[in-house]
Amino acid sequence: MSCVADTRVLVAGGSGYAGALAARLIDRHPAFELSAVTSRSDAGKPLSELYPHHRVDAVLEELDIERHGDVPAAIVAYPHGAAAPVAAALRERGTRVVDLSADFRLRDQPTYERWYGEHGAPRLFGTGVYGLPEVYGSQIASANLVANPGCYPTATLLALAPLARSGTIEDVVVDAKSGVSGAGRAPSAKTHFVAIDENVVPYGVGAHRHMPEIDQELAVFGAPVTTTFTAHLMPLDQGELVSCYVTTSEPWSQDRVDEAYGAWAEGQPFVDVVASPPGVRDVRDSNVCAIHARADARTGKVFVFAAIDNLWKGAASQAVQNLNLMFGHPETLGIEP
Amino acid sequence: MSCVADTRVLVAGGSGYAGALAARLIDRHPAFELSAVTSRSDAGKPLSELYPHHRVDAVLEELDIERHGDVPAAIVAYPHGAAAPVAAALRERGTRVVDLSADFRLRDQPTYERWYGEHGAPRLFGTGVYGLPEVYGSQIASANLVANPGCYPTATLLALAPLARSGTIEDVVVDAKSGVSGAGRAPSAKTHFVAIDENVVPYGVGAHRHMPEIDQELAVFGAPVTTTFTAHLMPLDQGELVSCYVTTSEPWSQDRVDEAYGAWAEGQPFVDVVASPPGVRDVRDSNVCAIHARADARTGKVFVFAAIDNLWKGAASQAVQNLNLMFGHPETLGIEP
Amino acid sequence: MSCVADTRVLVAGGSGYAGALAARLIDRHPAFELSAVTSRSDAGKPLSELYPHHRVDAVLEELDIERHGDVPAAIVAYPHGAAAPVAAALRERGTRVVDLSADFRLRDQPTYERWYGEHGAPRLFGTGVYGLPEVYGSQIASANLVANPGCYPTATLLALAPLARSGTIEDVVVDAKSGVSGAGRAPSAKTHFVAIDENVVPYGVGAHRHMPEIDQELAVFGAPVTTTFTAHLMPLDQGELVSCYVTTSEPWSQDRVDEAYGAWAEGQPFVDVVASPPGVRDVRDSNVCAIHARADARTGKVFVFAAIDNLWKGAASQAVQNLNLMFGHPETLGIEP
Amino acid sequence: MSCVADTRVLVAGGSGYAGALAARLIDRHPAFELSAVTSRSDAGKPLSELYPHHRVDAVLEELDIERHGDVPAAIVAYPHGAAAPVAAALRERGTRVVDLSADFRLRDQPTYERWYGEHGAPRLFGTGVYGLPEVYGSQIASANLVANPGCYPTATLLALAPLARSGTIEDVVVDAKSGVSGAGRAPSAKTHFVAIDENVVPYGVGAHRHMPEIDQELAVFGAPVTTTFTAHLMPLDQGELVSCYVTTSEPWSQDRVDEAYGAWAEGQPFVDVVASPPGVRDVRDSNVCAIHARADARTGKVFVFAAIDNLWKGAASQAVQNLNLMFGHPETLGIEP
Repeated sequence: MSCVADTRVLVAGGSGYAGALAARLIDRHPAFELSAVTSRSDAGKPLSELYPHHRVDAVLEELDIERHGDVPAAIVAYPHGAAAPVAAALRERGTRVVDLSADFRLRDQPTYERWYGEHGAPRLFGTGVYGLPEVYGSQIASANLVANPGCYPTATLLALAPLARSGTIEDVVVDAKSGVSGAGRAPSAKTHFVAIDENVVPYGVGAHRHMPEIDQELAVFGAPVTTTFTAHLMPLDQGELVSCYVTTSEPWSQDRVDEAYGAWAEGQPFVDVVASPPGVRDVRDSNVCAIHARADARTGKVFVFAAIDNLWKGAASQAVQNLNLMFGHPETLGIEP
Repeated sequence: MSCVADTRVLVAGGSGYAGALAARLIDRHPAFELSAVTSRSDAGKPLSELYPHHRVDAVLEELDIERHGDVPAAIVAYPHGAAAPVAAALRERGTRVVDLSADFRLRDQPTYERWYGEHGAPRLFGTGVYGLPEVYGSQIASANLVANPGCYPTATLLALAPLARSGTIEDVVVDAKSGVSGAGRAPSAKTHFVAIDENVVPYGVGAHRHMPEIDQELAVFGAPVTTTFTAHLMPLDQGELVSCYVTTSEPWSQDRVDEAYGAWAEGQPFVDVVASPPGVRDVRDSNVCAIHARADARTGKVFVFAAIDNLWKGAASQAVQNLNLMFGHPETLGIEP
Repeated sequence: MSCVADTRVLVAGGSGYAGALAARLIDRHPAFELSAVTSRSDAGKPLSELYPHHRVDAVLEELDIERHGDVPAAIVAYPHGAAAPVAAALRERGTRVVDLSADFRLRDQPTYERWYGEHGAPRLFGTGVYGLPEVYGSQIASANLVANPGCYPTATLLALAPLARSGTIEDVVVDAKSGVSGAGRAPSAKTHFVAIDENVVPYGVGAHRHMPEIDQELAVFGAPVTTTFTAHLMPLDQGELVSCYVTTSEPWSQDRVDEAYGAWAEGQPFVDVVASPPGVRDVRDSNVCAIHARADARTGKVFVFAAIDNLWKGAASQAVQNLNLMFGHPETLGIEP
Repeated sequence: MSCVADTRVLVAGGSGYAGALAARLIDRHPAFELSAVTSRSDAGKPLSELYPHHRVDAVLEELDIERHGDVPAAIVAYPHGAAAPVAAALRERGTRVVDLSADFRLRDQPTYERWYGEHGAPRLFGTGVYGLPEVYGSQIASANLVANPGCYPTATLLALAPLARSGTIEDVVVDAKSGVSGAGRAPSAKTHFVAIDENVVPYGVGAHRHMPEIDQELAVFGAPVTTTFTAHLMPLDQGELVSCYVTTSEPWSQDRVDEAYGAWAEGQPFVDVVASPPGVRDVRDSNVCAIHARADARTGKVFVFAAIDNLWKGAASQAVQNLNLMFGHPETLGIEP
């Protein structure tokens, strides 16, 4: 019951896991109103047929920029490559966009092309603000195009920011574990229940698309490293854990670790520094990133473990956090921890 | 190390779960030798690429009846409808066949056509022996075409045989629960990990193809009933439990139940009558059916719970049990409980 | 932000799954305020240590009726037997109580004693209102002691109410499947991950304590039957499905089924009659009961499938629904579907 | 059916997961005979009551060294600390022992005491042969006391041996993931299904007892490093994956990696070098260790992934492999890959 009209928000690409959740979060949001949910593959179906538990009363529609684009804001949940043209079309109409794809995350176009192929809207390349609110909050507030980070970069960057900013990271190994929703909704041999159940398997080894994104941001923070990053698929639905093993150029005491991470979490509603290594259940269905950091005397390394829900903080609820900032709402509105 | 040459066995259709397991069981069998494994969809691939854990050193081949059919025995693991022509072609060359599909299970052709459509080898219709060794052992021994039962009928019939034979079944409700391997290897929205995980859902309600098969055999046993049967998909890989609630025309005491089930299990190496309700883990990776029966004084009904491994006793190892009988080997050879 | 002070609610017994969730729901509720959370086993610990994902900022306290009992309302989440004295002590101080145990559900004291042993507050026996809001809503509104139903009875009674009220139920078989949270938080051989994983197993066969509760209420509705009820433990956390197979004294057409269930759901915010059998995922973390009913022409029976979240509609959120009614709030406040 | 009498083998401590599996493997072994299975906690119970699926027909007995110790061989599956006295008592009677605990793995007594406390049979300390057959095969053949390696060291050492032997390892990070059976059979809050399900959580961070064992052996191989090692608990039963990130003192090409690992696997029946990163399902219920190694051009590191079944190669079947060597049988007898 707000005194002013809610801001209408389009969700373009609502049949995937992240888009559908974004639609639900907008639908329940006290200051936003869901204007429409579109889908290329499932137009005509009620969203509740695909996602009964979201209980969103909307029918998926074929995207029609003329009809759907006349809104102040949109969340675009299209695959990499396909997202850019949609974002561009919306931007032309003045709609402020949070894009969930990788299309506007990278700042170096050759790097983008090496990992993703040709860009779908080159004129817009590099114009997006990287949508990690804990770092880029003020820029996001005035941005018209926000590139929502990848799920692994979100967890990794929130885990490593204090170390990276100190300028003391020499080498970092990130071993990431993700639930299957991170692999998307398309049925395949790899996402068949029988292939995942009672299994754990590395994937994208040496070639995961989130690597350049992590390196780009760590460098901005002050750690120009080549991150060792490997992702593993685990037999669970939502949830992601990154285990980071950091070699530093000078020794870190536990006191220094505690101080740095305490300062990092200060005032951040969604960064929880916790006293023991978090499990992914601790943050399920929330926008929280739970972080545990410790100086390991035995090896001299610093260990950092960070858990997020890949569909929430790793995608849809972080998009809402960005929209909150863009429209002047409290950062936590509708996604309270 | 047998004194005589092992009997060569073809597995036709080895890329599905049941066919692949059949290939492994034949490959390890002391009296059978795997002549070839064929596949329509994956010819050219090593079987170990699809099923590393089976450790069978064979390359999937396109079926060539001329080349592959010159064997004494074959296990056919094709989908319903497609199996009959393959079985027929093999029979023409004298090969003795165990068919895993439904094509030769039913004895009434109109019933077959109602549930499965046109039959692929009408001249052979009705010539198969129903391959439930605990019931049809002697006929199987001399059969040339054995119709391996469905997984649900296997568990249900082994569970209900003593009651059915007494002629006292008036009504029976079978609530069945199955692991996802029962749904086959083809990726689909229904078998996606995220759809199955943390879920349980009824399927094929009122229209499951195993119903006519169960009714047919129960009638032969002495119980001409219309079985109430519902299957549910559960978040596990292999395993099947049938919970049977039987209304009888006269009261059964626990003593009578114990006597009837004790007699039923007597001499059956794969029927275990157990003192408390079995879990599907108890029979995983085995040809055993574990059965618990009890007279329920409160309701006057008899409850029977039976657990099998749907891929083993419900498919591949039962096929080997049938082959053992057909070729004069001990019933348990290569599939010892 | 309500204009009037929120009603203070005590949660007594907050270390178990249901009590902890109740604390969270009260903590977030727009019209209630969490006064305290008590625990016999874990007093002194922050609730967030046991349940990080609930993010409730409260320390578990030893129950002190003098100190904690001075509140308008309490949710009691004690085990059967231990709950009654706590509820009695709270009632003496005028606190309105929703009790999650079985202590006030049954109306016949000998039946209670047969299933649960001696009652802990015999003077209060039979004074509670059965807290199924869809049936007893108006009585709950003015009740001081509400007996929150068991999880299985909740799902079963919501599934069968329309049939029971018609007076045509002759026999009913309920096959129930539950996630492991229903077995409680105490570690045991039965709840060890390895015992549950890749398993499904019947439990409490012929002797489940929810049976008399189901029969009592079905009789009130108009179906004086002895329900055949069997529960099964499944490898998932939250969720419960009841599959009901009903023999009726006269045939039901699908039209009659649809009409009866349509009327039943009408105006009920938490009863969803759905077009195909629900999975438990569809209602996870919600107070909704999803029901699918169909006349099965083949057997002449009526099949009803109902899914709930055992910790929500089966316990904690239903307690909040009851409190909403007791304090004159909209039934859905704080637990919107 | 061997011409000579089978060697009798005692399994001391058969109620835990590893001991029970050892009993089953001995029970089915063509050259060993299970003389007895003992248990401190469950004496008097049939083993099949605890482990129905093992189908071992034996009753657990209280250990009586006089009665049970008169055997040529024993597998001791006691907890750390409690194992040493039992092994000592058996050794005094001339029984050759494979010990599954850590009591004889370490060669430095102060190190043992720091991690495990006082040793239970100091006179025997350091007299065991480290039972990794791929490395110590010839010493195992003549050993009377074999210390079966820990599960993580087994996978890690098999993964890293070729690199360690080259003398080029400078630093190594091992991120390990294990199924819950690795945590043992004792029920606890940490092994409750609800705590594990949909979760992944680091444990023993910076203080895992397998660390000194790994460092000890890597040093023997030629890599005197302090290994960074962290274990994670995952929602599955059996299976373990170690992801190793190795910094080398000189660059390794993929060719050099392939050559080194090819040579390492040569003639090793249980070491499978595979072309893509293995999943733990690939080795379930087998004594195989599947290894994938690659030179990562981007980071200059070598990545090695190794999967084992923690209860098989990580414990019970490796014990049988050791017994095979000790009694002159083919290494693979009874545990064929």
